[in-house]
Amino acid sequence: MPRPDHLQFGALVHGSGGHIAGWRHPRANPDGELDIDFHVRLARTLEDAGFAALFVADVVAIWGHQLDSLHRTTRADYLEPITLLAALSQRTSRIGLVATATTSYNEPYHLARKFASLDHISGGRTGWNVVTSVVPLEAQNFGRAEHFSHEERYERAAEFVDVVKGLWDSYAEDALLRDKAAGRYFRRDGRRAIDHHGKHFDVAGPLNLARPPQGHPVLFQAGASATGRAFAARYGEVIFTSPVSTEAAVTYRRQLDAAVTAAGRDPGDVRVWPLLTPIVADTDAEAAAILADLGSLIHDDVLRRLVQDNFGDEDFSDLDLDEPLPDFGEDTNRSQSRRAGLLALARGERLTLRQLALRFSARADTAGSAATVADRIAEVWATGAVDGFNVSFPYLPEQADRFTAEVLPILAERGLFRPPPDGTLRQRLGLPYPTRQGPR
Amino acid sequence: MPRPDHLQFGALVHGSGGHIAGWRHPRANPDGELDIDFHVRLARTLEDAGFAALFVADVVAIWGHQLDSLHRTTRADYLEPITLLAALSQRTSRIGLVATATTSYNEPYHLARKFASLDHISGGRTGWNVVTSVVPLEAQNFGRAEHFSHEERYERAAEFVDVVKGLWDSYAEDALLRDKAAGRYFRRDGRRAIDHHGKHFDVAGPLNLARPPQGHPVLFQAGASATGRAFAARYGEVIFTSPVSTEAAVTYRRQLDAAVTAAGRDPGDVRVWPLLTPIVADTDAEAAAILADLGSLIHDDVLRRLVQDNFGDEDFSDLDLDEPLPDFGEDTNRSQSRRAGLLALARGERLTLRQLALRFSARADTAGSAATVADRIAEVWATGAVDGFNVSFPYLPEQADRFTAEVLPILAERGLFRPPPDGTLRQRLGLPYPTRQGPR
Ligand SMILES: Cc1cc2nc3c(=O)[nH]c(=O)nc-3n(C[C@H](O)[C@H](O)[C@H](O)COP(=O)(O)O)c2cc1C
Ligand SMILES: Cc1cc2nc3c(=O)[nH]c(=O)nc-3n(C[C@H](O)[C@H](O)[C@H](O)COP(=O)(O)O)c2cc1C
Repeated sequence: MPRPDHLQFGALVHGSGGHIAGWRHPRANPDGELDIDFHVRLARTLEDAGFAALFVADVVAIWGHQLDSLHRTTRADYLEPITLLAALSQRTSRIGLVATATTSYNEPYHLARKFASLDHISGGRTGWNVVTSVVPLEAQNFGRAEHFSHEERYERAAEFVDVVKGLWDSYAEDALLRDKAAGRYFRRDGRRAIDHHGKHFDVAGPLNLARPPQGHPVLFQAGASATGRAFAARYGEVIFTSPVSTEAAVTYRRQLDAAVTAAGRDPGDVRVWPLLTPIVADTDAEAAAILADLGSLIHDDVLRRLVQDNFGDEDFSDLDLDEPLPDFGEDTNRSQSRRAGLLALARGERLTLRQLALRFSARADTAGSAATVADRIAEVWATGAVDGFNVSFPYLPEQADRFTAEVLPILAERGLFRPPPDGTLRQRLGLPYPTRQGPR
Repeated sequence: MPRPDHLQFGALVHGSGGHIAGWRHPRANPDGELDIDFHVRLARTLEDAGFAALFVADVVAIWGHQLDSLHRTTRADYLEPITLLAALSQRTSRIGLVATATTSYNEPYHLARKFASLDHISGGRTGWNVVTSVVPLEAQNFGRAEHFSHEERYERAAEFVDVVKGLWDSYAEDALLRDKAAGRYFRRDGRRAIDHHGKHFDVAGPLNLARPPQGHPVLFQAGASATGRAFAARYGEVIFTSPVSTEAAVTYRRQLDAAVTAAGRDPGDVRVWPLLTPIVADTDAEAAAILADLGSLIHDDVLRRLVQDNFGDEDFSDLDLDEPLPDFGEDTNRSQSRRAGLLALARGERLTLRQLALRFSARADTAGSAATVADRIAEVWATGAVDGFNVSFPYLPEQADRFTAEVLPILAERGLFRPPPDGTLRQRLGLPYPTRQGPR
């Protein structure tokens, strides 16, 4: 299908904001995560402003324990995404509901059923952010001493998604007859088992639930390594990318389109949304001051953790925050792209740990007045390499309120943005309806 | 805590009603299961009438495939309970939300997180119906050729529940400080890992979520075998039982109380709710006619299935429905109590398969005028052996509407029923708050 001619926006929400110290900001609500009414208010603000989707990240563990900094962050306290989004589905009416779930520590049958249930309950507004898990501690909550290797988890993910799609196709769209007189609830030949026997999973099926309203919930993906990108090209319908320069965005898109084509798909059926972490203030100077404030609210131990979590098992406890980063070796079992990227950055600019952490964790790539933020968005959009943005607000609710009230109207005025049409999430994003595969 | 001095009611709901042919009744809504607004309407009717809880049964498979009768029932199409109840939590305000989840095909970390999330989102209204799975096909959706043995699944269930409780206790009640100035989100010593290494599970913890408002969601259980009852005595807070004679109910309660005491618990901390499947009509004769109608709406293949599903692998396809049941041997890996009960019933009364199926599947143990149904409830209540009832309405919405509008007012007038007090589900049922175990 043709790529969209207007900007699309999704929001990556965590009740206490996306910046690691965002909850400490004087105008942040530190109690947001467990307060369903706070989530509702936020979801409605975004929905009313024309955000296409709300996206909840997830990790099935606390975010690591090697450095004792966790109690200084909100990262050990968050609601399970599908449960949260099912609740929000009843207090919103149009916004897409995208939940993260890992293929490494779940069963395909459960996830197929939960996403299908949410899709029925929400009237076709569901998306699944497919991840393979990045935090080592997750393994230990599911009976494994260690995470699967990077290659193995993508292999498993591919089989997992194939099984889930097969399960979603258990029933034909028109299988449910509910014919009281004939006593036929569904058409006998409109349902089938999948009888999958693969390397990682054995699943008989069929799913015990009618086909989701969208056919399949929309698949989101954020693989960044070579393997992860290949996976995204094969399965992803909306690709989350990290924030990048406009040149890098163009190169990325060219490569992605080629990979999507090579995988036998139409590049027009894929959306790319880089991460955008805006701080909107009255002036650029004020926004910069907020960003600096947020940085100064990060405790030294948390700074260490932010870097360390992306490096593996190196012990950072005794590292001097203000010395250049030591020369670490390679590690093949971590999120390779991140580690490599950080190492290159630190080496190239001879950054100290503090500088690297602040650069990396500042998590506000676009700070300025509403006009400045809108300009930056317009500039990336003008490359033609992106379809929209995945917006993470550093602290809440203020930054979501300002972005929707001040930035979006500017983009609308310039003709770059308008609220997406009504319909399922798939329709709102301009993505094709997946026909049921295999025998009728 | 003292046992309640008024009747408690929970409702076992499936969108198309509890009777296998209920969806075919002329006044039934056959489209209820996938219609969230239908669920909401039902939940509100029950909530307004003073039902303490709404209970959603579950099986993670279609209900068997040996006889090709499934397409004549609604049993291959139902929403995942936690997802459904999370949605309902936002459109109800007091009623308890009890989801079934199996310990045989889940991971403790996921269930602990989901139930804790639902408890936070619903303001402490969550319950978990702990089951070990009864439908053989479930195994094949989760990589196993066969179900765990009966003993093994209860052993696994015990370890599972212990782990889940430990995870719910990850944080102390007062651990979340959210102290912006000091930069402490939670009290460092207010959180702990569980580091569980057992026969069936290895789970490090801690849970990445604050302690649920109820401390622990309320544990519901329906084990009926000797092992199942022992499990219920050790863990159950509300016990679902099958409908029984008043004498059997008294004996059961005496034995349960003794078993609960032997397990070191106070029998006052356990509620017993037998299943009640009422049909309310203007007169007893009319109710009997509805029941007969429902029976006649069950197709012969479905009658076969209803019995066969409880017997194991015997092939019923060629059995004459109107001959006495043949003499089957024993089978140790099925839900023993059900199989044994049915066999005894069939042998004792020389029932044909049709008679047995109708007796067993009629699923309306109490048909009559509102006064008749109220009398029967009062009679069982008078034994002192039950605390309330788990009500399954044969078809919807009519039977829920009539029960709440006609039967409950009679019971209220007689001083036997009043809506439970406001509060968490635990408080409404008069159950004690579980203090956090182990080190602070
Ligand atoms: C915007 C964005 C959101 C992400 N959200 C999650 C998440 O919620 N849970 C998770 O385990 N990983 C998440 N990831 C990590 C990715 O799934 C992926 O593992 C990461 O980009 C590294 O790529 P790789 O797996 O190909 O090495 C996210 C990544 C990005 C860019
Ligand atoms: C009212 C009631 C509801 C039940 N709901 C479920 C259910 O939703 N899912 C399930 O797998 N088993 C369910 N069961 C089965 C019980 O969990 C249990 O397996 C059964 O009573 C047999 O006992 P046993 O396991 O001790 O042999 C239910 C039983 C009763 C009486």
